[in-house]
Amino acid sequence: MNSFGRIFKVNIFGESHGESVGVNIDGCPAGLALSVEDFLVDIERRKGGTQKGTTPRQETDLPIFKSGLFNGKTTGAPITIIFENNNIRSGDYEKQRTHPRPGHADFVASKKFGGFEDYRGGGHFSGRLTVCLVAVGVITKKLLQAVAPIEVVSTITEIGGNPDLEQGLQQAIEHKDSVGGIVECKVNGLPIGLGEHFFDSVESLLAHAVFAIPAVRGVEFGTGFAAAKMYGSEHNDAIENMDGKTATNHAGGVVGGYTNGNELIYRIAIKPTSSTPKNQHTLNWETGQMEDFAVRGRHDLCIALRVPVVLEAVTAMVLADLMLLEQRIPRILQA
Amino acid sequence: MNSFGRIFKVNIFGESHGESVGVNIDGCPAGLALSVEDFLVDIERRKGGTQKGTTPRQETDLPIFKSGLFNGKTTGAPITIIFENNNIRSGDYEKQRTHPRPGHADFVASKKFGGFEDYRGGGHFSGRLTVCLVAVGVITKKLLQAVAPIEVVSTITEIGGNPDLEQGLQQAIEHKDSVGGIVECKVNGLPIGLGEHFFDSVESLLAHAVFAIPAVRGVEFGTGFAAAKMYGSEHNDAIENMDGKTATNHAGGVVGGYTNGNELIYRIAIKPTSSTPKNQHTLNWETGQMEDFAVRGRHDLCIALRVPVVLEAVTAMVLADLMLLEQRIPRILQA
Amino acid sequence: MNSFGRIFKVNIFGESHGESVGVNIDGCPAGLALSVEDFLVDIERRKGGTQKGTTPRQETDLPIFKSGLFNGKTTGAPITIIFENNNIRSGDYEKQRTHPRPGHADFVASKKFGGFEDYRGGGHFSGRLTVCLVAVGVITKKLLQAVAPIEVVSTITEIGGNPDLEQGLQQAIEHKDSVGGIVECKVNGLPIGLGEHFFDSVESLLAHAVFAIPAVRGVEFGTGFAAAKMYGSEHNDAIENMDGKTATNHAGGVVGGYTNGNELIYRIAIKPTSSTPKNQHTLNWETGQMEDFAVRGRHDLCIALRVPVVLEAVTAMVLADLMLLEQRIPRILQA
Amino acid sequence: MNSFGRIFKVNIFGESHGESVGVNIDGCPAGLALSVEDFLVDIERRKGGTQKGTTPRQETDLPIFKSGLFNGKTTGAPITIIFENNNIRSGDYEKQRTHPRPGHADFVASKKFGGFEDYRGGGHFSGRLTVCLVAVGVITKKLLQAVAPIEVVSTITEIGGNPDLEQGLQQAIEHKDSVGGIVECKVNGLPIGLGEHFFDSVESLLAHAVFAIPAVRGVEFGTGFAAAKMYGSEHNDAIENMDGKTATNHAGGVVGGYTNGNELIYRIAIKPTSSTPKNQHTLNWETGQMEDFAVRGRHDLCIALRVPVVLEAVTAMVLADLMLLEQRIPRILQA
Repeated sequence: MNSFGRIFKVNIFGESHGESVGVNIDGCPAGLALSVEDFLVDIERRKGGTQKGTTPRQETDLPIFKSGLFNGKTTGAPITIIFENNNIRSGDYEKQRTHPRPGHADFVASKKFGGFEDYRGGGHFSGRLTVCLVAVGVITKKLLQAVAPIEVVSTITEIGGNPDLEQGLQQAIEHKDSVGGIVECKVNGLPIGLGEHFFDSVESLLAHAVFAIPAVRGVEFGTGFAAAKMYGSEHNDAIENMDGKTATNHAGGVVGGYTNGNELIYRIAIKPTSSTPKNQHTLNWETGQMEDFAVRGRHDLCIALRVPVVLEAVTAMVLADLMLLEQRIPRILQA
Repeated sequence: MNSFGRIFKVNIFGESHGESVGVNIDGCPAGLALSVEDFLVDIERRKGGTQKGTTPRQETDLPIFKSGLFNGKTTGAPITIIFENNNIRSGDYEKQRTHPRPGHADFVASKKFGGFEDYRGGGHFSGRLTVCLVAVGVITKKLLQAVAPIEVVSTITEIGGNPDLEQGLQQAIEHKDSVGGIVECKVNGLPIGLGEHFFDSVESLLAHAVFAIPAVRGVEFGTGFAAAKMYGSEHNDAIENMDGKTATNHAGGVVGGYTNGNELIYRIAIKPTSSTPKNQHTLNWETGQMEDFAVRGRHDLCIALRVPVVLEAVTAMVLADLMLLEQRIPRILQA
Repeated sequence: MNSFGRIFKVNIFGESHGESVGVNIDGCPAGLALSVEDFLVDIERRKGGTQKGTTPRQETDLPIFKSGLFNGKTTGAPITIIFENNNIRSGDYEKQRTHPRPGHADFVASKKFGGFEDYRGGGHFSGRLTVCLVAVGVITKKLLQAVAPIEVVSTITEIGGNPDLEQGLQQAIEHKDSVGGIVECKVNGLPIGLGEHFFDSVESLLAHAVFAIPAVRGVEFGTGFAAAKMYGSEHNDAIENMDGKTATNHAGGVVGGYTNGNELIYRIAIKPTSSTPKNQHTLNWETGQMEDFAVRGRHDLCIALRVPVVLEAVTAMVLADLMLLEQRIPRILQA
Repeated sequence: MNSFGRIFKVNIFGESHGESVGVNIDGCPAGLALSVEDFLVDIERRKGGTQKGTTPRQETDLPIFKSGLFNGKTTGAPITIIFENNNIRSGDYEKQRTHPRPGHADFVASKKFGGFEDYRGGGHFSGRLTVCLVAVGVITKKLLQAVAPIEVVSTITEIGGNPDLEQGLQQAIEHKDSVGGIVECKVNGLPIGLGEHFFDSVESLLAHAVFAIPAVRGVEFGTGFAAAKMYGSEHNDAIENMDGKTATNHAGGVVGGYTNGNELIYRIAIKPTSSTPKNQHTLNWETGQMEDFAVRGRHDLCIALRVPVVLEAVTAMVLADLMLLEQRIPRILQA
């Protein structure tokens, strides 16, 4: 563990304000064409600064391929991709060192790593590392598409409790506060039977992966928490034909831990950005006293706005690995 | 993967109507006293037949130790525990073979395993296997207690949408239908810093494990999905002292993927039992036609009633492994 | 790790003088026919008592299937097989508790597990557990044969330094001493390209697995240690045709960590049985003094005699897992 | 697998003639001081060009830290180190593309990866990647030393069958041929009980790791293959005192799969460099005919000369991971 995947294995490394962040991928089939251009759209989707509610920090964020590619195609050897950190203002964070920021990992990381952790901008715990997940998503969405018309699509369904996203965001801006949201992912075109028994159900693997996205507080499949309020006769999805098509889809496309050939649907809850513009009353580590404290630096009002492309990425990552396990993606992709 | 755990590794095996179900554990420290008596209370808690809403099927369910114990203590070698299946009426299920039961794994398992799966009573997909998880929970709760006063406690907080559990159940009985519920788990006494970075956060590991429990449809930590409707200034938990005690606990005791020393709180949503007493309209595999169909066999009206002890078990399993990784549980327990 | 295999995963459990030994297998394809009869020949080959130089201890050693089989075929769910220990005389070993036997794990196991280990007959460290490997071998040889005419054959090439095996054994009997040997394994019919890059070369995986066989002290591929004395122009195997057939086979069928389509050949060195009939001068744990000491109990003069079938087993185990990784064994075997 | 290690996990990436080679390490304790200077001696030991028999290719080979270090110490987050490839003459290899080089991975890699592999200079299969192992060795030797006076020392004991190394090399130069050798590793200061039961014995893990070093053809522990010619009474090491000190050390410091507190000794056989200066008669891929062929490029006459520091590295890597598993290296190193 700690890497993710059984055949398609992913390791993420780097720090928010270190030299770079990056990803090492082992087990990617040979013969997949990859170019910088493949990454641009998804990296752009993840970037802050382009819409209300996201941080003005802007990284160029071009993937630098360090290994595993030859003549524009994957070789079957490990792929390493690095994103340089060019746009760093660590000074912002040094000043905050006296106050472990509420909702952030500052306090626990310091306890866990004895003060040796890179605390600048959250270090290894920063949302900055999700750019690596996005890169993994680009590759795995291409892998899935190489063998079947599998579509992985995520959208925000709620900002600050408001299904009108513009309104939800406006409310946060008016309150000068950060705000959370709900992000949904739908996948069409999956074969029946993805998932492994007992501990490696589709839900287990997806849930495991989504909690690597910072700020996720919950995950639910199909009707999810609402299912707990339903009767069995309501919730059960009647099977309609020999392909397993169901009349309803309360299960969200997963039964017994396996995909059942219907649309996979699941949702995650994103908490409001911990770095709120509002003053907070919290501990000063040096004095041991509670104090008023304002988080500085560039921050998103609503981190959920960046999440859809990241959720697509971890979803595709999990599914690509399961497709390899099921031998539905070959180890060599032919042109 | 597919086994669970990095140091304390668990493999579950067996089928609902096969000879037995069981569990193989590798990596349990040496010197932990274990007797059949240690298991009785939790096995009883999981059993059906003792309260309204659970199935009359009764297994004796005494753990049979096949390896890893000597003179009443763990040896450090792999532990294998078997539970025999004595009380089987497979005939009930043979009759249902023509209809893949809605909400069950029958259809997908048949597709995935080419018809070779043991379909009797759900086979390897049956809730029967949770007795193995309960056994793991008994051992890991003892392990945790051996080094610290760590309490893992689960309770049902809602049946059929009703916080009055008796009423929720009565409603189901009156509707002659099955019903779902919410189960919560709280853990006190944990050290700060359990969890591993990026892919192995506490939430990732717990979420992974809980979806091995049949019928789970969602999981949320702390305020969970409600957090998505909150402002940052509301949701953030102010740190009050040098031990990391927070004024509120919206985070549910986990920040940045690590335990933060406050109470760990999380909840899971349990769908209504798929085997409802009501007639269902679904596919007949032999004719390819939709038909009315009634599930026979012994079933729970509300499977959530059995879940608390299972949720405690997977929680303790995850935490014990993390405590071993953190070197807070030694490899030899001294008397 | 500690289990073996990436898709076809094996866990071994049990103790020499406990209730049973057994094996848990996860990831075996569905649809493989298995019966007790399949195991009899290999179990017989491993058994002592049937030839000069092996111990008179006789287990019936019939495999008891606890899970994963249905209607005589594998289901795709975990397979558990148990062998009961019927023929135990622990008394022999209790007497020896005061003297950690030279060449045995008694001393180190006691240090490692704090005295909690099951010391009777070597406990979990006993050669008794190789019956589980043999069972794995039966299954994996059948798996390999199900997709290609792959033959895994091991033979003893030397006893006590003597290529005439009868003489080597006779010499040991005359010296009233135990003796070692060399065992070779050849595999024909393998495809080109089995093995994974860097850490999971064929040699790495086979070497890892063979050292799970007690008493193995070395492993070499092709010309092995003799290669260290050769010139490059002698050792290189010229490729003769487009199938990769080589003129010579000094490489033993493995180049760059992958099978190259030629015969796989490798050898292991087996030390003389540690339990020699000769008196030994060693530590008495109770007195802390050196003493003369005679090992009692039933023992093999030459443990190498039992090894060929075990070497075949671990070889087939490694190759079956690599064949699954290469998608050359499907996850469902069709009749 | 494919990465190595259970707590201290290592992934190697890169290609001989790509942009760089590197290593990703997860699980390194926090607080270990690391600087470029720490790496210089071992990197120099591995380099060619400084003695008779090694290639004139010279890389500057300074480690570039991409993540996991902060203020000169490890943070507990993943460490990524890159070595740039500056001194590349791929032209040499392009010319050889028509002839899969005997003894090299050219042929099998092409079959395995469908021609997508980076074939220049052996690509991912090149000895160039051992610089990454050396870097791992520097870190793990420091880790071991941080907790105990553990010395890992490798030496060449034989070149071309000759214990006089100068003569062995001279012979090769005179024959205008490449030549193999034997490399031995000794470790002093290890605690008793390192190693895990059954599949993860010390021998299994070390053997697994050493076959990641190119050109290794065999491995033996203690007396190794010679043990197969000995009597039990000769081979057994009498235990002399309560610390487990043995009178002889035929076991090479490992009994029952665990270290026994005596000196760990093992040896590996290195084949002669496949790229011999001599002409070879082998396949031309384009014509399908056998032809005379001369390997061009810069090559070592005796690759064994570079191996000692690499053998130390993989040995320290295995032992550090086992020390972490045994909780003998803490997760935070205090100053």
